[in-house]
Amino acid sequence: VDEQLAPGRPGPPRSGRTRELDLLLAVDRSAATPLRAQLEDAIRSAVREGRLVAGTALPSTRALAAELGVSRGVVVEAFGQLAADGFLQIHRGGATRVAHVPPPVHGPPSGPTAPATAPPAAPSAFDLLPMSGDLVGFPRRAWGRAIRGVVDATPAPGLSYGDPRGPERARTVLAAYLGRSRGVLATPDTTALTAGVTEGIGTLARALAATGARRIAVEDPGFAPHRRTLQDAGLLPVPVAVDAGGLRVELLDGAGVDAVLVTPAHQAPTGRPLSPERRTALVRWASEHGAVVLEDDYDGEFRYDRQAVGALQALAPDHVAYCGSVSKTLAPALRIGWVVAPAPLLDAATRLRLIATGGTAALEPLALAAMIDDGDYDRHLRGRRRVYAARRRVVEQAVLDLLPDGEPIGIPAGLSVPVLLPPALDPVGLAAAAHRRGVLVAVVPVVLDGREHTLVQIGFGRQAESGLRRAVGLLADAVAEVAAA
Amino acid sequence: VDEQLAPGRPGPPRSGRTRELDLLLAVDRSAATPLRAQLEDAIRSAVREGRLVAGTALPSTRALAAELGVSRGVVVEAFGQLAADGFLQIHRGGATRVAHVPPPVHGPPSGPTAPATAPPAAPSAFDLLPMSGDLVGFPRRAWGRAIRGVVDATPAPGLSYGDPRGPERARTVLAAYLGRSRGVLATPDTTALTAGVTEGIGTLARALAATGARRIAVEDPGFAPHRRTLQDAGLLPVPVAVDAGGLRVELLDGAGVDAVLVTPAHQAPTGRPLSPERRTALVRWASEHGAVVLEDDYDGEFRYDRQAVGALQALAPDHVAYCGSVSKTLAPALRIGWVVAPAPLLDAATRLRLIATGGTAALEPLALAAMIDDGDYDRHLRGRRRVYAARRRVVEQAVLDLLPDGEPIGIPAGLSVPVLLPPALDPVGLAAAAHRRGVLVAVVPVVLDGREHTLVQIGFGRQAESGLRRAVGLLADAVAEVAAA
Repeated sequence: VDEQLAPGRPGPPRSGRTRELDLLLAVDRSAATPLRAQLEDAIRSAVREGRLVAGTALPSTRALAAELGVSRGVVVEAFGQLAADGFLQIHRGGATRVAHVPPPVHGPPSGPTAPATAPPAAPSAFDLLPMSGDLVGFPRRAWGRAIRGVVDATPAPGLSYGDPRGPERARTVLAAYLGRSRGVLATPDTTALTAGVTEGIGTLARALAATGARRIAVEDPGFAPHRRTLQDAGLLPVPVAVDAGGLRVELLDGAGVDAVLVTPAHQAPTGRPLSPERRTALVRWASEHGAVVLEDDYDGEFRYDRQAVGALQALAPDHVAYCGSVSKTLAPALRIGWVVAPAPLLDAATRLRLIATGGTAALEPLALAAMIDDGDYDRHLRGRRRVYAARRRVVEQAVLDLLPDGEPIGIPAGLSVPVLLPPALDPVGLAAAAHRRGVLVAVVPVVLDGREHTLVQIGFGRQAESGLRRAVGLLADAVAEVAAA
Repeated sequence: VDEQLAPGRPGPPRSGRTRELDLLLAVDRSAATPLRAQLEDAIRSAVREGRLVAGTALPSTRALAAELGVSRGVVVEAFGQLAADGFLQIHRGGATRVAHVPPPVHGPPSGPTAPATAPPAAPSAFDLLPMSGDLVGFPRRAWGRAIRGVVDATPAPGLSYGDPRGPERARTVLAAYLGRSRGVLATPDTTALTAGVTEGIGTLARALAATGARRIAVEDPGFAPHRRTLQDAGLLPVPVAVDAGGLRVELLDGAGVDAVLVTPAHQAPTGRPLSPERRTALVRWASEHGAVVLEDDYDGEFRYDRQAVGALQALAPDHVAYCGSVSKTLAPALRIGWVVAPAPLLDAATRLRLIATGGTAALEPLALAAMIDDGDYDRHLRGRRRVYAARRRVVEQAVLDLLPDGEPIGIPAGLSVPVLLPPALDPVGLAAAAHRRGVLVAVVPVVLDGREHTLVQIGFGRQAESGLRRAVGLLADAVAEVAAA
């Protein structure tokens, strides 16, 4: 039953402005898609296509729920998600309004994110390094079946050099996956396989440098290896401060940059998403300056409280290039990643990549596509989320119980709990003291909101749940030792 | 029975100089290795290690055969191979002497080579494009078994980022394989996996550029895509002429270059190996100038007349970086290649590659190692050689019968027969005329020995044997049409 809301249809009182909505929104109760998701999609499409313009006030959740014949909770959830994604602005005590979103011309997609560091060689009793998934949980059976199937079934021409963006089948499946799972606006033509997020960022940066870009804003604190990747690609990384809302977008004007690299889903290392206001402001800035935003969808798949915050890219697919990988969802050793980018940028990056590497591997991306098609990939992610959410709760509780000086920050997401410690602690000394107790952990000095802190990232991706509390206890001992020194 | 030739042992008369050989050479008739190969190895080692110095005259083949108790043919073959590899110089009517070979400090390895071009989209009745292997012959069963085994058996830590040169097991197996099959001096530490020859060349070039190199000699005619790869990596490609002996090494001094890229096994596109004299001269030049030679072991695996000519790298592992891949032996879609290079250069290249790509895929190189270990890879290569040798004979005979104006050049090797045509023929017109007859073929204008030619590369990698004669006939029709125009 398609409940198109025709203008003349009887309903609760509404303003002239919201009457427009009648023509745009529809929910289909017979469809498999949840009503909340349908409503979100409908509003998102209307905003993207310019049918709902910035500043438009939406009806109250109560009124819209009555109009659509759905429970009010459905509308509240949909509005909340759209606000988190930057499509709507919720004003306490006032109307919810459409945010400023530049209209897209065509679309890119999004996915997970891989850091580019080698693990230390020395084995330790407890491994709390962040940014690693649990490789013991690698779905060997599903992956083995998928890759064997691809080796058996790929026709001979598919074993040649092929499309430098990767096999069309893999791009098609991936574009659809990124659309449904991360809200990315992707088509097979704007999607390219890479050997991981680092290669995606590196190649995009080289393409930007080739067209005259010189300076790129990076988050401070941020993921250091990517700065080096940008530098080697010919761009100068310009650190821009991060606060509780993520990258301080208002500082971009003073930074004199041509591009920005951000981690909107889960800022590395502070563990917080880019706020809805900042998202809107960032894409507006990019649109006004003809700049490009590189979105590293770091931890995008691992959100434990509610539906994941969608990709920034969906707000402005002409100005955002989205990068993800399977390095944390499956395994770094696979070297599978992807980029969704505006066509001219993607084409330039693909040309450079072809010249530099001779082409793109075909079989493993096709195996990933087969896993996605079979539902094995989603099933694997759901299982991983359960495991990681449980581990995260243990870490958080252990920090509260055993490390009272520490302040856990960041949302329930990702593969580590960032904890702020008193600024006087020496990061190097603390990491060494932890190591002496058999605990591998990453400690970095950070400046947040203008103040110095010591930030310890308690990773739980590689450490089984049973050892986590003990490991946090040993870390607390190390903190006490260094604080007393 | 180890037949060590002790100084006092009775034997045929010999000069004082050749008496040295008594201490160095030994053959073991009970070993599985053929006597000829043992003799080659023994002389090669003696030359490498400086025990046999440049200019030393060897005994006559007759004398040495008697001394070692082997047939004279064994010694003749071994000398011939060592001369082809640049270790010995055979002077007609005079003694065979040890060539000038710079002593190595440590070693790199070698393998096959992959061009970096996408095949044309339009299907044709006959595909005579060069530089492609027969993908219908891809060993699906062996590869599927190998990759599945690796997915099942690789321990969890092996699924992480790991060594940026690739998994140690894969480097160990590969180094041994390259040593025995291509004569490369490789250790696991001087061997790194890449995504193919193009990436190997590109990364090495970037490392050279980072240390101040600016200009690199490339073969003219040569493989154009690699020039672009070098250029993007920061080096200026300087074309240096090729003649029947390969790269004209004597022109390097005037070219003002810091490095050289060569295809010594089978020059692309003229199909001839770098001559023994040129090999010696090239490594001497590199050694004297502190320059680096990038060896693209293009077609190294596919030689149909006799044992393959060994890698140039073995002559001077401190000055030669060796690149190969499985793109023609297995399939380009795998994106597996390797580099064997002097340790400082390899380390610099690996660092740059890690920064640019985030790491190296582990599973597919491990599958290749498993195939090599099982003997499946060698078995596959032997089968491919039989198939390609037969196809090559058909093409050569068809050219002699049907294309009398054409002059086949090049040795019985590789995946195409290069044929020189009268210079007046328009290359673009000929390729188009062939295409109209359903024949895809590569035609290039070349200057060889100071004269202009039209060179058509009749590839047989992708075209089944049954269609080859017909395809050459159609090509001959195209030649006649263009010649008459």
